[in-house]
Amino acid sequence: MFIIGELINSTRKRIREAVLSRDAAYIRETAVRQKEAGAGMLDVNGGVAGREVECLTWLVNVVQEAVDLPLCLDSSDPAALGAALPLVKGRAMINSITGEPARFEAVLPLVKQYNTKVVALAMGAAPPTGVEDRVAMGCRLVDSLTASGIALDDIYVDPCVLPVSTGGEHGKGVAEAVSQVMSRYPGVHTSVGLSNVSFGLPVRKLLNQTFLVLLVSRGLDTAIVDPCDRQLMANLAAAEALLGRDEFCAGYLRAYRAGKLEPPPPAGG
Amino acid sequence: MFIIGELINSTRKRIREAVLSRDAAYIRETAVRQKEAGAGMLDVNGGVAGREVECLTWLVNVVQEAVDLPLCLDSSDPAALGAALPLVKGRAMINSITGEPARFEAVLPLVKQYNTKVVALAMGAAPPTGVEDRVAMGCRLVDSLTASGIALDDIYVDPCVLPVSTGGEHGKGVAEAVSQVMSRYPGVHTSVGLSNVSFGLPVRKLLNQTFLVLLVSRGLDTAIVDPCDRQLMANLAAAEALLGRDEFCAGYLRAYRAGKLEPPPPAGG
Repeated sequence: MFIIGELINSTRKRIREAVLSRDAAYIRETAVRQKEAGAGMLDVNGGVAGREVECLTWLVNVVQEAVDLPLCLDSSDPAALGAALPLVKGRAMINSITGEPARFEAVLPLVKQYNTKVVALAMGAAPPTGVEDRVAMGCRLVDSLTASGIALDDIYVDPCVLPVSTGGEHGKGVAEAVSQVMSRYPGVHTSVGLSNVSFGLPVRKLLNQTFLVLLVSRGLDTAIVDPCDRQLMANLAAAEALLGRDEFCAGYLRAYRAGKLEPPPPAGG
Repeated sequence: MFIIGELINSTRKRIREAVLSRDAAYIRETAVRQKEAGAGMLDVNGGVAGREVECLTWLVNVVQEAVDLPLCLDSSDPAALGAALPLVKGRAMINSITGEPARFEAVLPLVKQYNTKVVALAMGAAPPTGVEDRVAMGCRLVDSLTASGIALDDIYVDPCVLPVSTGGEHGKGVAEAVSQVMSRYPGVHTSVGLSNVSFGLPVRKLLNQTFLVLLVSRGLDTAIVDPCDRQLMANLAAAEALLGRDEFCAGYLRAYRAGKLEPPPPAGG
C-alpha cells in the first residue's frame, strides 16, 4: 500500500495559520512526522484564496528542506501547479486532473511537460452519484490519458469519495468502482482522498479507518490519508497480512515489534 | 449483519471450568452479556472429551434460562447434537455439516428432523488450501443440501477460516470464496468462525476486527464472533454505514448515542 500523507493542507486551520505566518518549523515538523509514520509521498496543498501561487511554492520549498519524499501537488489552480512544479525535486504527482474539459486541458500539458504522475479524479461538471458514473468517468480519463502518452503506471484513478452522510450509495459506489477499474486496467493504480467519506458524521476516524480496509479489500493500492493515525496504520498492516500481500506476515510482525499495533499507553501513564 | 456470539465455548478455559463445576451463574452472565452487546444468536459448544452429551445438554438448558435468543449447537459429535436438539426452544442452527461423507450422513437427518438452520463448512477429508477448493466444496454442500430439501435461506456457507500464519492465501481465499458463493446462490448466507484467522500471531483482536471488515465488504452477512469486543462491533457499525446497508446511517448514529463507538474511558477515570 502506497501512503500519501494528507496533513500539509491549507484547508486545515493549523496549516493555514502556519502558511500565512510563514511558520516553517511547524510545516517541517509535520513533514517529518508523516515520513516517520510511514508516508511514501506527501500531499501539499497551498489553497489560500488569491495567494495560492505564493503559498504553494513556499510550502514546496519548506517541505523539501525537511524530507526527501516525493510530493503530490494538490491544487485547483493550474497557475499554482505551473509555478510549483519547476521547484519539485524528483517526480511529482499532480492532484488532480478531472473530466471537466477546461481542467483536463489545463492540467494535461503540465503532466506531460514535467513528466508527473497524476490523480485522475472521476468527476465531470458534477460530482458522481453511483458506481456506473464513477467507473465510466474513471475509464474515460484513463483512455484519454493513455491516448496522450501517459503510462498506466503513472495514473491513479480516484473514484471521488463523497460523504456517506449525503448518500448511502457513496461508500459502496467507491468500493465497487475501485474493483472494476483495477480489473479493467491491469497496471493502473487507484487512490482515494479518504477522509471526505466521514464528513458530517460523528467519530470520523472510525469511519475513515474502516473505509480504508473496505477499499483495500477491493484492490485499492494508494491512499491520501493521515499516516499519524495509529489505528488506521495498524488496520492497514493487518489488512495486508490478511490479504496475503505481506509474505510470512513479516511487515505485520515488524510493526508489532516497533510497538505500532497497540494503542499507546494513556497520557501520564 | 447477523452476529452469533462465540463466547460459550468449552474449548475456552474459563467456560470449560464453569461447565465442569456446573457454574450456571457464569454461563448465564456470559449469555446475557453477549445478548446486550448485540448478538442475535448464541453459539453453544460443550466439547469436553467423553462428556459432551451431558455438557452440551446442561449448557443448552442453562443458556435458555438466561436469554431468549436462538441457539447454534456447535459440536463434532452427532450424538451430542441429537441429545441437545430436542431441548432447544425455537429453531436451532447446527454448526456444522461438512463435505466429509460420514459427517454429512450423520448431520443431515438431524437438520431435517429438527428443521434447523445449518452451517455448511467447506471442508472435506482435509482442510481447504485456496479459493477454488473452498468454493467447490461450498457449492457441493449447497447443492447436496438443497437437493435434500433444505432451503437456501437456512444454509450458512463457512469457507473455513484457517490461520494466515500457516498460509498467506488463507485470508484472501476466504474473502474471495465469500464473494463467489454469495453471487452464485442469491439467498444463501455466508458465515465464518472469525478468530481462527489470527491464531499464532500477536495482537489477535486487531486481525479479527480487520478481517471482519474485509469479509463484510465481500458480502458476508453472518459471523460467529465475540460481540463483547467493542472495537469489532464499532467497526461493523461503520462498515454497514459505509456500504449503504444502514439507511441514513441510523444504526451508526444509534450506536454513537449509546456510547458504543468510542473506546471506554480508562479504568478509574
